[in-house]
Amino acid sequence: MTVTKWNVRAGAYYDSVVLMQLQRGLLELPGVIDAGVVMATQANRDLLAANNLLPDSIFANPDDLLIVVKADAEASATDAIGKVDELLARRKSTNVSEDFRPRSLSSAVKQLPEANWILISVPGRYAAGVAREALELDRHVFLYSDNVSLEDEIALKKTAREKGLLVMGPDCGTAIINGIGLGFANRVRRGTIGVVGASGTGTQAVTAQIHNLSGGISHAIGTGGRDLKPDVGAITAHQALDVLARDDETKVIVLISKPPSPDVATSLISAAQGAGKPVIVYFIGYPPPARKIGNLHFAISLSEAAEIAVRELENLRLENSPILNNGFVRGLFSGGTLAYETLLGLQASLSPIYSNSPISDSQVLHDPLHSRAHTIIDLGDEFFMVGRLHPMIDNDLRIRRMRQEAADEEVGMILFDVVLGEGSHINPAGELVPVIEEIRETRIGELEFVAIMIGTDDDPQNIESQIDQLKDAGVIVFRTATEAVEYISLRFGAGKKNEFTPVKLEQLNQPLAAINVGLESFYDSLISQGAQAVHVEWRPPAGGNEKLANLLAKMKK
Amino acid sequence: MTVTKWNVRAGAYYDSVVLMQLQRGLLELPGVIDAGVVMATQANRDLLAANNLLPDSIFANPDDLLIVVKADAEASATDAIGKVDELLARRKSTNVSEDFRPRSLSSAVKQLPEANWILISVPGRYAAGVAREALELDRHVFLYSDNVSLEDEIALKKTAREKGLLVMGPDCGTAIINGIGLGFANRVRRGTIGVVGASGTGTQAVTAQIHNLSGGISHAIGTGGRDLKPDVGAITAHQALDVLARDDETKVIVLISKPPSPDVATSLISAAQGAGKPVIVYFIGYPPPARKIGNLHFAISLSEAAEIAVRELENLRLENSPILNNGFVRGLFSGGTLAYETLLGLQASLSPIYSNSPISDSQVLHDPLHSRAHTIIDLGDEFFMVGRLHPMIDNDLRIRRMRQEAADEEVGMILFDVVLGEGSHINPAGELVPVIEEIRETRIGELEFVAIMIGTDDDPQNIESQIDQLKDAGVIVFRTATEAVEYISLRFGAGKKNEFTPVKLEQLNQPLAAINVGLESFYDSLISQGAQAVHVEWRPPAGGNEKLANLLAKMKK
Repeated sequence: MTVTKWNVRAGAYYDSVVLMQLQRGLLELPGVIDAGVVMATQANRDLLAANNLLPDSIFANPDDLLIVVKADAEASATDAIGKVDELLARRKSTNVSEDFRPRSLSSAVKQLPEANWILISVPGRYAAGVAREALELDRHVFLYSDNVSLEDEIALKKTAREKGLLVMGPDCGTAIINGIGLGFANRVRRGTIGVVGASGTGTQAVTAQIHNLSGGISHAIGTGGRDLKPDVGAITAHQALDVLARDDETKVIVLISKPPSPDVATSLISAAQGAGKPVIVYFIGYPPPARKIGNLHFAISLSEAAEIAVRELENLRLENSPILNNGFVRGLFSGGTLAYETLLGLQASLSPIYSNSPISDSQVLHDPLHSRAHTIIDLGDEFFMVGRLHPMIDNDLRIRRMRQEAADEEVGMILFDVVLGEGSHINPAGELVPVIEEIRETRIGELEFVAIMIGTDDDPQNIESQIDQLKDAGVIVFRTATEAVEYISLRFGAGKKNEFTPVKLEQLNQPLAAINVGLESFYDSLISQGAQAVHVEWRPPAGGNEKLANLLAKMKK
Repeated sequence: MTVTKWNVRAGAYYDSVVLMQLQRGLLELPGVIDAGVVMATQANRDLLAANNLLPDSIFANPDDLLIVVKADAEASATDAIGKVDELLARRKSTNVSEDFRPRSLSSAVKQLPEANWILISVPGRYAAGVAREALELDRHVFLYSDNVSLEDEIALKKTAREKGLLVMGPDCGTAIINGIGLGFANRVRRGTIGVVGASGTGTQAVTAQIHNLSGGISHAIGTGGRDLKPDVGAITAHQALDVLARDDETKVIVLISKPPSPDVATSLISAAQGAGKPVIVYFIGYPPPARKIGNLHFAISLSEAAEIAVRELENLRLENSPILNNGFVRGLFSGGTLAYETLLGLQASLSPIYSNSPISDSQVLHDPLHSRAHTIIDLGDEFFMVGRLHPMIDNDLRIRRMRQEAADEEVGMILFDVVLGEGSHINPAGELVPVIEEIRETRIGELEFVAIMIGTDDDPQNIESQIDQLKDAGVIVFRTATEAVEYISLRFGAGKKNEFTPVKLEQLNQPLAAINVGLESFYDSLISQGAQAVHVEWRPPAGGNEKLANLLAKMKK
């Protein structure tokens, strides 16, 4: 028979290391079979229950500490619970240097004024407050803590952006600044590949793999997993891209994230196009628009992102920035799949973009007869097809729509496909070219025509002659949708920059000095890497007793 | 000043070619500025309006023919409208051979009994009926017509599957059977690459590109764009994959589609894994789970699909089928991104799969404390983290969960990551291995352990020793998530076959003979390619007059 005993400590703060060590200490006591030491949240109570460690009829608040011991006899259980205070005290006495440690951020900054970086790993509900204090002290923040609200994250990042400071996180596991790993970080050689990572283990996997492939890291800047949500708008990722773009030691940038919201993806891709160096993008689960668009490379896995980065280093050859087309693209397709693949590719760079064959709901073109902004139309869609020949046979519908689009002054490019082969019109270029020439004669302002030509040299139409007719009329002709997507993305998407106070580059490239608040192991790790660091002997206001803290706060007013 | 006149012809059937030719005939008449000849659907009326061709106060039903003429004067417009009958008649008289043509499918089959293929391009509302008749005559169907209901599609395909017949379509633009293009098809050389295409221009782009890269096509089988929707369940794609897998002349298969529903994708990928030859998969917009999983290759564009197919031909070397693991995978991750990337890869092969960090709604694991079927858990998720150290530092949570999963007899594999580096536990293998050994001793039935190890040779943990400890305990260790995904997909996903009446292979490899119902240009195209063909002089029941048709149908009863 086993006996379970428990103890609840209301509203007192212990850091997670203390809790783990208390649990281990209890497990070592004679007769103890299992033990649980947790904050009494619902999730943690469920976890205890799953381990048969949750007694009935426990009353505890989520911020209470719950200590449970399961033992082989009543006496062992009682003894173990009785030793809790002793075990907690034993842990404290090992910290000999504690007296010399600052107890606040401001005194830590006085002790190590060159520390530009503050690592915060206190419990979530205190973390935003500490981060705010760090920003007030004009320091960059590495915010390891999770369970920080989205509102706090947005407020912190907006403040930081104004000041040219980085808030990496919340829930940022990993960064490497000037050779020093913050939080969880693999030991990798210094090098010329910069990383912007909205995911901790993503950054670890990529930086480790780069090292394993004999490459090296300049800086790896974390953003926290929510940075690319629409509400946050990738504030930190934009800052990080910008500072790495300005860093001459960074030759190639890797940008990794879980799938961002489409608008955020487009804005980041656009910024990356303006980085002036190769950027390897891996948005996990986001369909790559192409292998390569100008300086951008799209990976389909973490390991591939690392491989491409190392390869591109050996391959550096920068193309000139293209001249921009400021109008809208209107794609008039006879082939549904070609329309879809083109939209899939262009959505990464062009926003907003609409279609009668949309990929996401926000792209629905409610009236297929009238284009909006950038638009890709499948003219072979059922909607158009009642009692009408397919646009591969009959060009009338497309010719009329071409004229309609050209009459819209905001249109800068008309894109269309020409699908040759059996069953198709015997001379599509012969019908389209006169219309293109007619439009060119009357149109005020620049208008590009781009064609995707699908066919073979055995097709009945004579593909060479079809291409020549179009080229003679000034049409730019590609043989695959992928090539057209790259061309168009460069013409429309490239290099739109966000305006914000730049992060000071020299702060990244100085020997790293940091202040650590929270997990002591992160401090140990900084020291073992040869960084200067100060650990703050942080305690929450009123020792974590919220009632008392509220009382104190009121008295201060 | 311009004058617009119009004419409505109620409930009469004209094929689309006749309508196009009538419109062109009207445009050639003196004084005519523009003309529209359309079935009076809302979409077509809107199109007329967009071209300033829709007069006010027209009354017409969607199945009425609407003829509109815009001319420079009253007399020209009146004259033009007066010439409609003459223009329609002129078109008819060009068809000298008409008298010798069969007027029904059954007489066409008598005329050309070796015709195994029936091409149908009649208007949508008649198409299902004609297709049903074709299946009753035991012929494969190429169903070009669109505007066919989903219910009709499902019913036709189920009937066809029972009979070992293919229904390519509805809305199937393209197929190439034994060197003969059906519908729209590029002229490509014969070869050893087979294509299964749920998209018409997708198939054209891929087959044309294969030809342009000096490859050739054995057969390209179309399915219609809706085949991979959950309601249809990829009936035709499964049949096509199966017959191409059995065809010795087909060495490599390309499978292309717009993004299928996740379950359909998994079932097709599983079937493709059992094809016994390389299959190049391109689901447009579906994130590729890897570049390669066994015999499967995942492309990210149509042109890349073609490139891989041609490359794989030169590269043929088939791996042995793996021995299957019939249990469930439970992934216990400390790294959120590693969990996510692994889920992204596995979802292509494993279904159903759940996670507390899901990619789609159907993957949500509502109770993160209890796994279901295949499950990927991020143990570093906020849910678990209140007052607890991260699982990269403290292995307690993972060890408990490992025991819990091992106690579930349905579990066949426990997958976990080990993330080394600064900040992480100094000897994770040292804590995990004893648990793995303990589980091995007590567990009844096979249980595989697979680890993803992230780290470098400079990390404080000594990565070689970490790997060796795990390997000594029988754990299979990979260095990237991608490699683990490939291994697991092959262990669990491979080669589950659907049961159905096989399509007769010899019918694909006989010289193609076909019956054409609908667009005459498709018949012309068959003949020009040297195929045997018969064109049916088809008219809808009662000449397209629905009232009369209903009356006739009632009289027959």
